[in-house]
Amino acid sequence: MKAINVGLCGVGTVGGGTATVLKRNGNEIARRAGRPIVITMAANRDLDRARELVGDDVLLTDNAMDVVNNPDIDIVVELIGGTTVAKDLVLAAIANGKHVVTANKKLIAEYGNEIFALAQEKGVMVAFEAAVAGGIPVIKALREGLTANQIEWVAGIINGTSNFILTEMRDKGSAFADVLAEAQRLGYAEADPTFDIEGHDAAHKLTIMSAIAFGIPVQFDKAYLEGISKLDAADIKYAAELGYRIKLLGMTRRRPNGIELRVSPTLIPAGRLIANVDGVMNAVLVKGDAVGATMYYGPGAGAEPTASSVIADLVDITRLHTADPEHRVPHLAFQPSQIANLPILPIDEVETCYYLRLTAKDLPGVLADVTGILAEGQISVDAMLQKPAAAAGGTAEIIIVTHIAIEKNINIAIAKIENLASTHGKVVKLRLEHLNG
Amino acid sequence: MKAINVGLCGVGTVGGGTATVLKRNGNEIARRAGRPIVITMAANRDLDRARELVGDDVLLTDNAMDVVNNPDIDIVVELIGGTTVAKDLVLAAIANGKHVVTANKKLIAEYGNEIFALAQEKGVMVAFEAAVAGGIPVIKALREGLTANQIEWVAGIINGTSNFILTEMRDKGSAFADVLAEAQRLGYAEADPTFDIEGHDAAHKLTIMSAIAFGIPVQFDKAYLEGISKLDAADIKYAAELGYRIKLLGMTRRRPNGIELRVSPTLIPAGRLIANVDGVMNAVLVKGDAVGATMYYGPGAGAEPTASSVIADLVDITRLHTADPEHRVPHLAFQPSQIANLPILPIDEVETCYYLRLTAKDLPGVLADVTGILAEGQISVDAMLQKPAAAAGGTAEIIIVTHIAIEKNINIAIAKIENLASTHGKVVKLRLEHLNG
Repeated sequence: MKAINVGLCGVGTVGGGTATVLKRNGNEIARRAGRPIVITMAANRDLDRARELVGDDVLLTDNAMDVVNNPDIDIVVELIGGTTVAKDLVLAAIANGKHVVTANKKLIAEYGNEIFALAQEKGVMVAFEAAVAGGIPVIKALREGLTANQIEWVAGIINGTSNFILTEMRDKGSAFADVLAEAQRLGYAEADPTFDIEGHDAAHKLTIMSAIAFGIPVQFDKAYLEGISKLDAADIKYAAELGYRIKLLGMTRRRPNGIELRVSPTLIPAGRLIANVDGVMNAVLVKGDAVGATMYYGPGAGAEPTASSVIADLVDITRLHTADPEHRVPHLAFQPSQIANLPILPIDEVETCYYLRLTAKDLPGVLADVTGILAEGQISVDAMLQKPAAAAGGTAEIIIVTHIAIEKNINIAIAKIENLASTHGKVVKLRLEHLNG
Repeated sequence: MKAINVGLCGVGTVGGGTATVLKRNGNEIARRAGRPIVITMAANRDLDRARELVGDDVLLTDNAMDVVNNPDIDIVVELIGGTTVAKDLVLAAIANGKHVVTANKKLIAEYGNEIFALAQEKGVMVAFEAAVAGGIPVIKALREGLTANQIEWVAGIINGTSNFILTEMRDKGSAFADVLAEAQRLGYAEADPTFDIEGHDAAHKLTIMSAIAFGIPVQFDKAYLEGISKLDAADIKYAAELGYRIKLLGMTRRRPNGIELRVSPTLIPAGRLIANVDGVMNAVLVKGDAVGATMYYGPGAGAEPTASSVIADLVDITRLHTADPEHRVPHLAFQPSQIANLPILPIDEVETCYYLRLTAKDLPGVLADVTGILAEGQISVDAMLQKPAAAAGGTAEIIIVTHIAIEKNINIAIAKIENLASTHGKVVKLRLEHLNG
């Protein structure tokens, strides 16, 4: 049977992995797909490096547009990253009637609506399994495996760098900066780690899952982001004493009046399976009204894990590329005419549980003051812990875990607590999710 | 758009759940599928019970063949179970050109080859996500999400009843019989629990996953089955001391000369995520050569979780039912012409690690004797534990964990150990899997 010709744009880590796996498993993949899938052309700035990674039988160019404009190419794989060249070339490929596979979470989270609209108009598929949670086929699970369900929420540990750092901070009791330096030495964190540790990467992935789970447009600009760089090792320790672990958690939840979409360091009960996902691994926990909770776990990055998802998309497209568009799975799981304009709720309107830590100067007075303030704000207390203060001048640290409350009310209460004569400094606030199945 | 008409054969727990979810989430499902999916006819022996569960607007019959022969029905859902009526009606539905969705693991594991051959000939789809691991979309993950990979092995905790019993035995230190009685009282075990506790149910599911993972025919008759009814609480305790948990594990592994396909109580390192899957929950861990290890976790049974998978299959078929058969995903993941006739290896040829427990009468002599026998059989020892014997007359129990060995050699060694004058009674043998990602 005629081979499917793939044009690879960007031959770096994932591009090299894709070429390697397509060659090594070409026979196994063709046994599944019904025809060979072959990289016949590749674009890369460094042609020598590309030649090394893709082999001798691939046409090379240093201009990705050559790939997009080659009439022999059936599917364009975009692995350049970013939203400049990558966006232009994806839109050009679609305009040329080519199907696209991309691992570019930023591109899909920020420009997905425009890209999918053009793809719909041109009758082509844009597949992006590799953009979320690396090798874990979680887009497929959400988009096809759970179609019976009203999705209630999706919670994900979807940034390996942050999860590695948090795991090391917990296991070794180390400070953030020390562990970050170690992660950089091991190659788990970039020289400029901002994108990973401040939650941008996780928020891109969460934005995509949120759209697919709830049938809404991608709305990255409305996502709330809070990273792990300000996390104090003390809070990891206190959380453990209270029976929780702290993870950089992406959480998107359906509420009657909109959708919560937020990434932040979050306490999770230590007994939950997802709380035990450690190191660079990723996991996504999905709550559907019919199925309950299901979880998808695996490597969230790396050359061959990500290539695994890129190639799964190539196989899907190979099976469907001559089928009528009505037979395809919609890009965002819901039919384009059925995408709902549910608003993303501002962070003030989020409802969840909270972990608060404050430093008390005058212990007898402070408990009455603080509990009074919480009661005023309709915030009820689930657990409380008192520790000798680390900070100079303080007599004690008080840790409070609340039941579900509105973030706005928590912030008002915190402002009042910080203004008390009996407290010292800022209140630490972390979100807490029980993730009940 | 024209609705898809579903004929439901068997209105019990899962049938009722399917009707409930299709009604409750009908709008959400149609937003995804592009058209409504509606049960228009149902067959059940007890018509009153069926009427209660499916509502007033469904045509009822007590003869499932009426559904199969109704020209208005697009998809037949078989939820009768067993391999008599169910098999006849599935084959008749296919012969009538109807697509089929089934939750019947026994039917697919034992008669899948015949069923898929007829479906191929008639150009219809037979979908069976609900047959394996209830609500977890693991068939989809294996068949579509991991198509880039040579699958190396699939390991599953895929019988909720057994996992509940083993979890309780571990947590409470109770004997098998006591926990079984409790499980029966709670409704987690049938009055006749044989099918669950002796490994048949798990082996049916594993047989199906093995076929899809490796591109081989279903070969349930070649599966090796060993249940949990003879498991001694002492071994759960000793395993824990050595850092392992015992699970009823389905394991299918690719070997150069064939496929291992076996279900048995198996030790797993306690630190592995899958070792922490407790109670009635299911999980499947898959090792692919490109992606590494990914895991799929969720409820393995129950009305709505199983309905979630039935309906996901209905949506898939709805999308593809008018497409050319070449656009569909092959029933066993590989193209029918590409199914390989790899043999299932006899249990004697299995290679894995082992846990052995023997009772020593004469301690000084026995260690030399036993280690000599193991060395003769090329079996090397990974760990050893000595305990005061519980059995009368013995002086000590010796627990040995081996490195990888051939089962045949282990059995020969065990026979020799049991014949030693220095040992007493039978040697307990359990398999042990490290499940390294």
